[in-house]
Amino acid sequence: MLFFGGDYNPEQWPEEVWAEDVALMRQAGVTVVSLGVFAWSHVEPEQGRFDFGLLDRIMDRLHEGGIKVALATPTASPPPWFTLAHPEGLPVTADGVRLTHGSRDTYCVSAPAYRAAARTVAAELAARYARHPALALWHVHNEYGTDCRCDLTAAAFRGWLAKRHGDLDALNEAWTTAFWSQRYSDWAQIMPPRATQYLPNPAHVLDFRRFLSDEFLGAFVEQRDLLRTANPDIPITTNFVQGGWVSVDHARWAAEVDLIAVDHYPAEAGDGAEAETAFGGDLARGWAAAGPGEWLLMETAPNLIYTPGRMHAKEPGRLTRHSLNYVARGSRGAMYFQWRQPRGGAELFHSALVPHAGPDSPVFREAIGLGRKLGALSDLVGGTVAARVAIGWDAPSWWALQGGGLPSAEIDYRAAVRQAHRAFYRSGIATDFVFPGLDGFAARLRAYRIVVLPHLYLVSDVAADAIRDFVAGGGHLVVGPLSGIADPAGRIRLGGYPGAFRDVLGVRVVEWRPLASGDGIALDDGDRATGWSERVETAGAATVVRYAGDVLAGAPAITRNRFGEGSAWYVSVGLDDDGWRRVLDRVAAEAGVTPVLPGLPPRVEAVRRGDLLFLFNHGDVPVSVPLPGADPATVPPGGVATHPLG
Amino acid sequence: MLFFGGDYNPEQWPEEVWAEDVALMRQAGVTVVSLGVFAWSHVEPEQGRFDFGLLDRIMDRLHEGGIKVALATPTASPPPWFTLAHPEGLPVTADGVRLTHGSRDTYCVSAPAYRAAARTVAAELAARYARHPALALWHVHNEYGTDCRCDLTAAAFRGWLAKRHGDLDALNEAWTTAFWSQRYSDWAQIMPPRATQYLPNPAHVLDFRRFLSDEFLGAFVEQRDLLRTANPDIPITTNFVQGGWVSVDHARWAAEVDLIAVDHYPAEAGDGAEAETAFGGDLARGWAAAGPGEWLLMETAPNLIYTPGRMHAKEPGRLTRHSLNYVARGSRGAMYFQWRQPRGGAELFHSALVPHAGPDSPVFREAIGLGRKLGALSDLVGGTVAARVAIGWDAPSWWALQGGGLPSAEIDYRAAVRQAHRAFYRSGIATDFVFPGLDGFAARLRAYRIVVLPHLYLVSDVAADAIRDFVAGGGHLVVGPLSGIADPAGRIRLGGYPGAFRDVLGVRVVEWRPLASGDGIALDDGDRATGWSERVETAGAATVVRYAGDVLAGAPAITRNRFGEGSAWYVSVGLDDDGWRRVLDRVAAEAGVTPVLPGLPPRVEAVRRGDLLFLFNHGDVPVSVPLPGADPATVPPGGVATHPLG
Amino acid sequence: MLFFGGDYNPEQWPEEVWAEDVALMRQAGVTVVSLGVFAWSHVEPEQGRFDFGLLDRIMDRLHEGGIKVALATPTASPPPWFTLAHPEGLPVTADGVRLTHGSRDTYCVSAPAYRAAARTVAAELAARYARHPALALWHVHNEYGTDCRCDLTAAAFRGWLAKRHGDLDALNEAWTTAFWSQRYSDWAQIMPPRATQYLPNPAHVLDFRRFLSDEFLGAFVEQRDLLRTANPDIPITTNFVQGGWVSVDHARWAAEVDLIAVDHYPAEAGDGAEAETAFGGDLARGWAAAGPGEWLLMETAPNLIYTPGRMHAKEPGRLTRHSLNYVARGSRGAMYFQWRQPRGGAELFHSALVPHAGPDSPVFREAIGLGRKLGALSDLVGGTVAARVAIGWDAPSWWALQGGGLPSAEIDYRAAVRQAHRAFYRSGIATDFVFPGLDGFAARLRAYRIVVLPHLYLVSDVAADAIRDFVAGGGHLVVGPLSGIADPAGRIRLGGYPGAFRDVLGVRVVEWRPLASGDGIALDDGDRATGWSERVETAGAATVVRYAGDVLAGAPAITRNRFGEGSAWYVSVGLDDDGWRRVLDRVAAEAGVTPVLPGLPPRVEAVRRGDLLFLFNHGDVPVSVPLPGADPATVPPGGVATHPLG
Repeated sequence: MLFFGGDYNPEQWPEEVWAEDVALMRQAGVTVVSLGVFAWSHVEPEQGRFDFGLLDRIMDRLHEGGIKVALATPTASPPPWFTLAHPEGLPVTADGVRLTHGSRDTYCVSAPAYRAAARTVAAELAARYARHPALALWHVHNEYGTDCRCDLTAAAFRGWLAKRHGDLDALNEAWTTAFWSQRYSDWAQIMPPRATQYLPNPAHVLDFRRFLSDEFLGAFVEQRDLLRTANPDIPITTNFVQGGWVSVDHARWAAEVDLIAVDHYPAEAGDGAEAETAFGGDLARGWAAAGPGEWLLMETAPNLIYTPGRMHAKEPGRLTRHSLNYVARGSRGAMYFQWRQPRGGAELFHSALVPHAGPDSPVFREAIGLGRKLGALSDLVGGTVAARVAIGWDAPSWWALQGGGLPSAEIDYRAAVRQAHRAFYRSGIATDFVFPGLDGFAARLRAYRIVVLPHLYLVSDVAADAIRDFVAGGGHLVVGPLSGIADPAGRIRLGGYPGAFRDVLGVRVVEWRPLASGDGIALDDGDRATGWSERVETAGAATVVRYAGDVLAGAPAITRNRFGEGSAWYVSVGLDDDGWRRVLDRVAAEAGVTPVLPGLPPRVEAVRRGDLLFLFNHGDVPVSVPLPGADPATVPPGGVATHPLG
Repeated sequence: MLFFGGDYNPEQWPEEVWAEDVALMRQAGVTVVSLGVFAWSHVEPEQGRFDFGLLDRIMDRLHEGGIKVALATPTASPPPWFTLAHPEGLPVTADGVRLTHGSRDTYCVSAPAYRAAARTVAAELAARYARHPALALWHVHNEYGTDCRCDLTAAAFRGWLAKRHGDLDALNEAWTTAFWSQRYSDWAQIMPPRATQYLPNPAHVLDFRRFLSDEFLGAFVEQRDLLRTANPDIPITTNFVQGGWVSVDHARWAAEVDLIAVDHYPAEAGDGAEAETAFGGDLARGWAAAGPGEWLLMETAPNLIYTPGRMHAKEPGRLTRHSLNYVARGSRGAMYFQWRQPRGGAELFHSALVPHAGPDSPVFREAIGLGRKLGALSDLVGGTVAARVAIGWDAPSWWALQGGGLPSAEIDYRAAVRQAHRAFYRSGIATDFVFPGLDGFAARLRAYRIVVLPHLYLVSDVAADAIRDFVAGGGHLVVGPLSGIADPAGRIRLGGYPGAFRDVLGVRVVEWRPLASGDGIALDDGDRATGWSERVETAGAATVVRYAGDVLAGAPAITRNRFGEGSAWYVSVGLDDDGWRRVLDRVAAEAGVTPVLPGLPPRVEAVRRGDLLFLFNHGDVPVSVPLPGADPATVPPGGVATHPLG
Repeated sequence: MLFFGGDYNPEQWPEEVWAEDVALMRQAGVTVVSLGVFAWSHVEPEQGRFDFGLLDRIMDRLHEGGIKVALATPTASPPPWFTLAHPEGLPVTADGVRLTHGSRDTYCVSAPAYRAAARTVAAELAARYARHPALALWHVHNEYGTDCRCDLTAAAFRGWLAKRHGDLDALNEAWTTAFWSQRYSDWAQIMPPRATQYLPNPAHVLDFRRFLSDEFLGAFVEQRDLLRTANPDIPITTNFVQGGWVSVDHARWAAEVDLIAVDHYPAEAGDGAEAETAFGGDLARGWAAAGPGEWLLMETAPNLIYTPGRMHAKEPGRLTRHSLNYVARGSRGAMYFQWRQPRGGAELFHSALVPHAGPDSPVFREAIGLGRKLGALSDLVGGTVAARVAIGWDAPSWWALQGGGLPSAEIDYRAAVRQAHRAFYRSGIATDFVFPGLDGFAARLRAYRIVVLPHLYLVSDVAADAIRDFVAGGGHLVVGPLSGIADPAGRIRLGGYPGAFRDVLGVRVVEWRPLASGDGIALDDGDRATGWSERVETAGAATVVRYAGDVLAGAPAITRNRFGEGSAWYVSVGLDDDGWRRVLDRVAAEAGVTPVLPGLPPRVEAVRRGDLLFLFNHGDVPVSVPLPGADPATVPPGGVATHPLG
């Protein structure tokens, strides 16, 4: 069965609407709904008083309708009574402002009172529903991520630091507290990063984000273990949300969930949404591979794309293309936020399968067709995507590159990773993600011919060794700027950039030369360096592309080094999308890595999952796609076709 | 007598300047000054000690000079001693920061200590001056609007909510607290909107603004009643200030004042200032019609236009044109902030009739001429402006459209209303404002042939019925996007937009499609949709204009529905000024609504008040204006002419 | 000996690096390092426990290597233990947020506990090192400037105000507290500027900045006197940092230091960095002239230019040109932040002589060459720069023009001063700075033929008299807009702008007419007014340039007045760089002021210090520069040449 459904909030509606809901779900082929994500104030209207009437009735009704339930523990949004009972359980900003209820996520994950209240409500739900026949999945909490800087957090942070660093000397060393007279002489002096006079210590900030990730994970594990005890047969997950502000290292969490669940909201209005969908699916598959094996699109917007300050309605067919694209990349289905658009609340215009206009609407009609397609695919899809290319992803490097003292405010970790991914995407080459911070990284690399490391700013010796071995063993490595610069504590690897990869790349960088917006330097292959340049000295590497202007004229911009049986490319400059694609196409050719399906017409995308080929026509004219050993497939404009292979 | 004068602050000047002030006022024909607006710290230099020496002397001196006084209660700006005596009377931000004196308006209107102090000083002034021969008007407070989120405010807010909603169940229902687990189980849990983790509940925010409006009104009424007791013959007002941040629903206040007084500062530097002047005057006349009948321009900047970050000096003649334009639109006169430009303080460059340069200056010379003109008009003007067109204005809709979860951050309530007003303004058609939130709305509509509802987001069933009856009875209705969407609590009217007006418009909107800045969609009449588009299905209406491109090609953009004896237009798209004017000109033609004076030369404006026609030449060449049954009038460049009619 | 070196932080490095440091310093010809600036947490690891082991060893090692030490008192960055011991010693924002350690500069200069801790550590250092043979200079604190609004600051502020104003009546008068009912009736009511409801009182803000300057100075003097007692032979300084947010009136401090030390970081990426270097050097020389006579570039970035959001690597040779330019303009040497680039901390990418790449790098190689050049110059340079032109600089005017109620948000004091300086710079004319706020201003003016006053918004009667006498005695004065407007308290000088200079300029301005960005008005000399225009009436002055358009057409834009033996120009408009240069070239010609060296090729700069001529070739081709009575000098591209004169 493929999951198809969305967040369902019957508590927002009178019960007479519920019957229509279940009927419409059946009409659309919905198989699973997420229930109870924000139901705490209904389930426990006063502290310690539980009322399961609503959930009982809707669980039964859904079961009768043949709809499965991903039941949430509602701990992401404590009710207003929690604020008055436990003000110390509310989050506090870096400025010391204690936030109040009135939105969602108003909790401090380190507050014992919050943790106890969360365990209590989760245990009550487990006791009541763990063996309910509709229950298919536990959905713990929602999008962990609430940052807090309070004194309770400070105490927990100190405990975490003591475990990580052992003693204060080691911490002082790791954080370079000698800089600006920050040497700690007592654990009690260590605070979460709070408002201070000037720039904070980046190692302090980085460790705080790692701490938060582990602290959230602790809160998840606590609930998970309690739910598992109630019924070991029900898989348990929590939905991952991305964003530069989210202090969760998902790769490290992967092994702790039974299913990777991702909330993914592409944020580019035009064709970019398709490339971003592919990125989100591939990254989720990477986490699955590092953990439970399976993943699921838990939330996306059915009919809207959100760019800053604007909601864009999708064109007809796009909901279907996006949804099937996630499935093609390995998702167990496609779920949405949300089933029915609410009448009020902060997100009253957030997208839904049943919009304000009701089922007589384009989005619900498209949902019916999509449900039919997913039903038909249920028995056909299986296995995963096979890729010979992997891109490195590292949450701590992302966090480290969000600081204020960097050579350029335009350094953007996620954009750099996405650019490399987009190059392969545009060339039709399947791409995985790997996580240099995980145990077993070296072994994972053996599956690939090409590894790309964009902005892998922090790297451990172990990971650097794994990369070196990968190349020595015949792999093809491509390193972009700002990789291998620092150790995991954020201390620079001295002697020339990129410290961790100087030997495998055969280069030594003696100077960074960030470029101003709009500036650029011509390269001798006709391309153009933008945003970033470096003074590179080769130390064994061959120069592939040189600067053709500026004070760097004649100096290396892109190099290639033979290292053992493999080759290691260094792309020291900022390039546009076409530039990156040219470099990576060349590496792919050298490595013998080919597209999923060669010779695709423009704006057509091919993804192979197991033995099923998916063809996506993102253009507005019908296309004919040549297939191996078969007649060409015709894909209508904006449409999707599938074709069994092997 | 027409009011002509301004805020006068003799406390800022040594007494030797006062003699010059009165002499210059007489020279300029000043009739009234606003006195004492910021005089609290002079009148009551220490708590409970009153010193009326200054006011006594200047009141007498003004009286001797034949100048009338609009005497202010100085309660908008408590003195520094108030802060130390009653720190709980200071405003607190959403972040919990208690503000300090050092500017103005540092009060919490819900703090009993502040209210008591305000009553005391008002009572002392009443006792002393209520029968002073110079007194013409009480000017209570100044520009009510200071927002506070303190615990005293919280208590008052809860009381107000209990009155509005009755019980917590009703409040939970009205606010859709089922969303995000916000259900309140005790009144004590309800706070003013304070800093929270993520988006606030929009219904909560909206009700808080309504509460503030009523809370300010309570403070006004308290002073008003006390002043009225002292001398029932003196009219009482308070000056209304506009701005998206001001939580005052002026239409609801209209019945509580004896004269509508408006502070109006056009904020467009070029010709836009003229259209904005017209808008401000027409809106003030609307409030007057809903209340005491009369209105007065209490403050504008004589010689400057303020745009963000810049003061623009007016061209010669513009002070006169602006001032007479307010009078033409019904004002009892023209008053300014301020009489004499101060030597220091936060607004030391704010415009004045007597600038830093002194009376030997262009602005004072123009003031002399203007005073002469106003004196000459005193006996000629009377009555009001007769309009057959009304535009809906609704402060709560404005507030509701300032939230964060809307489909587009470019939604701008005031801009939408102004665009409709500007279309009629440019066509020379007199326009009124009506207030769908007031009792008696249905009756008010009977005066009009055309009603336009731009962005009337919130609408009650009663108001929607009134609109329906207006059309059924033969009226011409024009509805713009984002009207009729929600009930007064902000809950969406389901089943298709615009819920409240689907039947009268004969349409059903199944999807909003906001457009990105710079994007646009061609329409089949040659116009272009920008900013906003919708998927409209007709249900009885005729399609007047269709989309000529995009996925909406062929779908309706503008429709017209016969309904009863009238017609109802739906303009579902964003249009530029010319586009709106074309639509409204067509409706006007259909409704038989004609300009004040047809065939005006470019940049010439005609306004008729009672039997007097005002002609404004905003251009830089002399114009000849044909008059009905009379020789053409010649108006010099930048000049104004008047002509008696009927 | 010329100073050559930088901030040296051995506490950041293991001792094995120290040996390399000293060897590299010797290789580069380093003569002095700044030591211990951020060493407090090493020197006093717990309150009251001092550990001088590290400093002892490095002082001795440097001495053995022949390197002198500018030893810092580390009081700019209290260690974390200080926060816990004395939370009241931390700074508090205007919002009431008490900042925490974790960065640097977390102190309240008015807190007795902080002042005591600072005195203690300074005294300990003095006791131990005052007679160390390596000690060449005391470097007190670092870049004074931490703003605090706490209650301790409030108390100190009141004391300072009582001294400045005498009594509350005088303060109320000076601050125009009659505006907005701000009259103080008790000293206890006066606070530092804190978060308030609306615009603050500008006189309040201005006096608070003056207070801070004096408060910082008090803290400096306290340490200075203590160090001087320990060894009267060692000169004492503190490094001045500039920036609009820094509340230090350096001109007033000049007499209190034994050597002016400046931190100067040009912030323009292109050729502008050269003009900014010249500006920084000339301004520092001005302070030196007002105080100890000598000055030193204490910090600049060796290899980077910082623009907002980006670090720009310098081109080869630019480090040398910039460094020698400061020396040419009078600096006792060239020092840098920093010697060795750190591995961690908030500024881990801040520029250094020994970068992350190590000594085998372009920057260290250039440093070696520069060290050699400075060594060769040591016996040749001396004396100072002789200039016949002076520009007025006034920190309080800068502060006053940062407020919110000004006619244009684009008013930029420093930009206006820099524009006048840049005009002379581009014409090759040596320029000094003078300080109208200092005693002895009148006497200082006698040295000059031309004085330029850009945006000298505040001016005392004494200074205005000095200016008048300067012109009467034959001087050439050029006044720009916004000069002479207010008295030192910020009260407008009434009767027409520019109040203080109306008579000497022979004009009267009756109206300001700021121009919107992008707008401009043609002038009759072909130039164009941008940003600013005024309605000027002449009262004796001759009109030099008139407006050729706008409502001001025909009115004076630039005037020239004969006054006594001299002439006074009023430039009432905003001009671009070329426009200012044309005006000032004309004044220079009239005044007989000539360039340092006439007939220079483009992009070549000549500076004369004492009898040594420096020639800077900022272009990329070799140039031949004609010399008086000698063969032409050839300067290579990007190079510097020196030539002995007289």
